[in-house]
Amino acid sequence: MNKETQLSDVFSALADPTRRAILARLAEGQATVSELAEPFGFAQPTISKHLRVLEQAGLIQQGRDAQRRPRRLVLGGPLKEVDVWLGPFREQWERRFDALESLLEQKKNKRRSKGEPR
Amino acid sequence: MNKETQLSDVFSALADPTRRAILARLAEGQATVSELAEPFGFAQPTISKHLRVLEQAGLIQQGRDAQRRPRRLVLGGPLKEVDVWLGPFREQWERRFDALESLLEQKKNKRRSKGEPR
Repeated sequence: MNKETQLSDVFSALADPTRRAILARLAEGQATVSELAEPFGFAQPTISKHLRVLEQAGLIQQGRDAQRRPRRLVLGGPLKEVDVWLGPFREQWERRFDALESLLEQKKNKRRSKGEPR
Repeated sequence: MNKETQLSDVFSALADPTRRAILARLAEGQATVSELAEPFGFAQPTISKHLRVLEQAGLIQQGRDAQRRPRRLVLGGPLKEVDVWLGPFREQWERRFDALESLLEQKKNKRRSKGEPR
């Protein structure tokens, strides 16, 4: 699977609020299917389906405990790729914010030098 | 539209390599439909369809030039929401990385104090 396809799979997996909530839960520690199903009020097969999508996207994996088969978050895996993808866009809005900030600073200084109220 | 639904729409819009490439192109500056269609070798209706998805997700908007109707990136809009959503996960993998780094540092120092080669 090439990188672009993997990134598409990751974004696709993240395009569901339940799957995002599962990831947020797993960020706090591993959990079994029944532990995950309970707070959402979903049947286990529904949760299992979501878990499969998350697993195929490489976002989660099964823990070592063979009996309980807990799921855990893959730290710094595909989510890091999303972060890397966001990089150039983040730079742009930060640059824009910096430019806005220095513009406001200039205006403030101008008003001050004219003796106007701030 | 609530925030979760909007975030789902954004992730869904990003789950396509052509749409991601369009965003990357628009990050360099605004472009018309024909300017966007050319490098991808797609027909204009195909590009227009992708642009509609991106526009509905709030990722791009139409510029002010009514005749050319260039599209431009919405800076710090929904992509910033994606960045905010990533925050807690980023913290986790950075913490993990820091822990790993300090472990390696400890091992190095131990070897040094024993007079072993680095």
